[in-house]
Amino acid sequence: MDIIKTLYRPSLALLTDLYQLTMANGYWKVGRAEDEAVFHLFFRRHPFDGGYTIACGLSYVIDFLKNLKFSRDDIQYLGQLTGNDGRPIFENGFLTYLENLEFTLDVNAIPEGTVVFPQQPLLRVKGPLLQAQLMETPFLNIINFQSLIATKAARICRAAKGGAVLEFGLRRAQGIDGGLAASRAAYIGGCAGTSNVLAGKLFDIPVRGTHAHSWIMAFDTEYDAFLAYAEVMPNNCVFLVDTYDTLTGVDNAVRIGKKLRKDGHEMAGIRLDSGDLAYLSIEARKRLDEAGFHNTAIIAGNDLDEHIISSLTHQDAAITAWGVGTRLVTAHNQPSLGCVYKLSAIRKKGGEWQYKVKKSEQPMKTTTPGILQVRRYVDPKGAVADMIYDIHMGIPEEVKIIDPLNPSRFKIIPEKMKHEDLLIPVFQEGRQTAAVPSIAHIRERTFGQLKLFDKSILRLVNPHEYPSGLAENLYLLKEDRIRKIRQFQTRVR
Amino acid sequence: MDIIKTLYRPSLALLTDLYQLTMANGYWKVGRAEDEAVFHLFFRRHPFDGGYTIACGLSYVIDFLKNLKFSRDDIQYLGQLTGNDGRPIFENGFLTYLENLEFTLDVNAIPEGTVVFPQQPLLRVKGPLLQAQLMETPFLNIINFQSLIATKAARICRAAKGGAVLEFGLRRAQGIDGGLAASRAAYIGGCAGTSNVLAGKLFDIPVRGTHAHSWIMAFDTEYDAFLAYAEVMPNNCVFLVDTYDTLTGVDNAVRIGKKLRKDGHEMAGIRLDSGDLAYLSIEARKRLDEAGFHNTAIIAGNDLDEHIISSLTHQDAAITAWGVGTRLVTAHNQPSLGCVYKLSAIRKKGGEWQYKVKKSEQPMKTTTPGILQVRRYVDPKGAVADMIYDIHMGIPEEVKIIDPLNPSRFKIIPEKMKHEDLLIPVFQEGRQTAAVPSIAHIRERTFGQLKLFDKSILRLVNPHEYPSGLAENLYLLKEDRIRKIRQFQTRVR
Repeated sequence: MDIIKTLYRPSLALLTDLYQLTMANGYWKVGRAEDEAVFHLFFRRHPFDGGYTIACGLSYVIDFLKNLKFSRDDIQYLGQLTGNDGRPIFENGFLTYLENLEFTLDVNAIPEGTVVFPQQPLLRVKGPLLQAQLMETPFLNIINFQSLIATKAARICRAAKGGAVLEFGLRRAQGIDGGLAASRAAYIGGCAGTSNVLAGKLFDIPVRGTHAHSWIMAFDTEYDAFLAYAEVMPNNCVFLVDTYDTLTGVDNAVRIGKKLRKDGHEMAGIRLDSGDLAYLSIEARKRLDEAGFHNTAIIAGNDLDEHIISSLTHQDAAITAWGVGTRLVTAHNQPSLGCVYKLSAIRKKGGEWQYKVKKSEQPMKTTTPGILQVRRYVDPKGAVADMIYDIHMGIPEEVKIIDPLNPSRFKIIPEKMKHEDLLIPVFQEGRQTAAVPSIAHIRERTFGQLKLFDKSILRLVNPHEYPSGLAENLYLLKEDRIRKIRQFQTRVR
Repeated sequence: MDIIKTLYRPSLALLTDLYQLTMANGYWKVGRAEDEAVFHLFFRRHPFDGGYTIACGLSYVIDFLKNLKFSRDDIQYLGQLTGNDGRPIFENGFLTYLENLEFTLDVNAIPEGTVVFPQQPLLRVKGPLLQAQLMETPFLNIINFQSLIATKAARICRAAKGGAVLEFGLRRAQGIDGGLAASRAAYIGGCAGTSNVLAGKLFDIPVRGTHAHSWIMAFDTEYDAFLAYAEVMPNNCVFLVDTYDTLTGVDNAVRIGKKLRKDGHEMAGIRLDSGDLAYLSIEARKRLDEAGFHNTAIIAGNDLDEHIISSLTHQDAAITAWGVGTRLVTAHNQPSLGCVYKLSAIRKKGGEWQYKVKKSEQPMKTTTPGILQVRRYVDPKGAVADMIYDIHMGIPEEVKIIDPLNPSRFKIIPEKMKHEDLLIPVFQEGRQTAAVPSIAHIRERTFGQLKLFDKSILRLVNPHEYPSGLAENLYLLKEDRIRKIRQFQTRVR
């Protein structure tokens, strides 16, 4: 078993739940594989009790779809899966169909780095039912995690109030790609760099790091260890000062910093990894300033998240940069985002669209029918409201946005207000139609997007709720469908 | 950027924190790259407030090390990293050294599927300081996550009291490998199968699944949808009955089950994904039994974890199998295990071993010096106590195990008690010396190991603490070292 060597080397076509493939066999068998279907991928609630979410993961989705192909190997594996009578569950004809399948989907998506809200489709997937269904699991896997981490990073960066946030989480991340994808999403959410070298190489993210406690311990004294490090790498000196006694460590760093300066180098920083970070950083800053090291950074870390960083900044901790690990890359206080992928329209070849609703006892879980787009209205001060509408029904002249969970809450948009449609075409009939922006560009988009929203919406605790809802005509259609389902259910019972 | 195509295709040598490489450059430069060092990987506290942990991830570690090599590409990437003066941070001579590096480490490890306790080395890495240091981040990444999930799975399976637990978490897992590695670890921890097809293929895990709500919604009625599914895949029929009204759904499943039976097939099960699972499962069982479907399984899911499953089994819910997703694969209530990797001994070429201790204000965080092994004492009733000892100091005639956090707590082992040393050699001088067992074998080991321990230790809430500590001679050495560090610190201040 050569996991590392083989993993991701063959196709990722089987990165899905088995039921997607059994349903695919079903659609193929009943002649409905090529019915046209529309699915939307969306979440229902912001993570971390927050007021916003950052969309992230689309570059992975594009990559996945572009390279998607069932390999000979995949088909053979499926061919030997058996049911409760010991006979194969998949038919040969279906497996041949899969092996020859070329994906022809249309995908529209909200670009990475966009601020998004519950119920808004981050992805709209349209095309043959069988193909569109197969995208559910991998697309959810990718978007759920990366949007979660980009959002966590944005919150942490906001708490840091302009101080650099460095992502150091690889060792506690959930698996190899849990670490790599987290580094990527954290950078898009606003982090300044990562310790993860492979993420730096693959995704073009600045990498950061100097030495660990083990370096100090490998020498007789801390001073010797700092000195040796400074001689080896004088242009990358951040001294970890807390191995024995933090403030003695600061004094040792100052002594080495003076030596470095004589040789024309500047000590970049010191790092605190334990103890009372507020007190120690303020004391360390005093000692550094007194010795003339006004530009030497103080980097602090130790199980930080947005709430601890907030508390430290409110205590005027003299911390210039924050090293954040586990609680960022695992989104420790809520390690999953609940995106779902729901069928909303279907038509037989050459037929009429049938709009679909999945009703639930919980109104929040009742889906929206149609082929959806999201329009964001903006005035000179920023974003005013978002509206989900159906692209065939269009938008009535009077723009009225209704909160489907509380229809008495609505907003009327003045005429001629500027607006932007958030979903853009990414694939058309299986061909990629939008280039993947650079990660730097995506990160800039995050910053630009966050500027559109009032600080009450970006607040870490008890945020204000941004107006986001359905176009009135779509709202009425949805209500009508729910009524019809109720009648139908009464009938079939 | 072809993430999927390129990820894991080149070397994983850069899957590490930058500081491992800057320290490596340092050790190389000061002529200490080939000093011999010993590091141990261990955790300090069981996850989930539990009483035990299942070691997992060693197969990945073996794979990683076996295939480890810095590629041309990796070296070029490192060569262009710059420091605060815009000049390279790494020296050319060092990069050449890395490019030519053949790993020659000794690795000893506790086999996957073993029940382990805090402070016990899951891995012992011995060899050239530079090489051993480089293993820190990737080994932690792998072992932390997989041990976390295997432990979570074991707890969930225990709560299910023999009912099958199926892992359905891919869509909410933390990244691609977050899903794959979780499926693997969950199976090792005791799950009966996964929905993740790629995990099934790569790791040889049974895969399970039938259809989703979208299948039902794609047909005019639930009955039509069940009927179509049964015609396509009669030997793999688990009907999801809660799309519209759960008990009506059960009745529809029964109607289809009768048709299947006429054709010589058995309905395998029904699935409940929402609502009051205790009430609905008991009602469903009645209807199934009345219709003669005594062997039809009832599979239930909906944000389950060990505590909810416990509560349902205590309510006599008629659930035969449990579908567990997010809360298993992300270890939702504690999404990281805190394994660390610490230097404990070092010697210059041809010199004497120097045993190392890293002291901390928190006694739990003070490391243990030496080159360690774990001995487990067992009597006919099961495991009695575990003892960490130094392989050079050996074990005194009177075997006394001391809890280093509370030395008044100790245990004396009667003479001639049976015992087993848990760490086994896996690599010697860079060559793999132990075969990787099959996953079925590893999973059996988990079951066998769990049988060794009293149920008070396996209890989900407020477990009894299993006796595990240091050999008395090692304990005394550690205390002595701590005293010397204190004296030294007083001196350097």
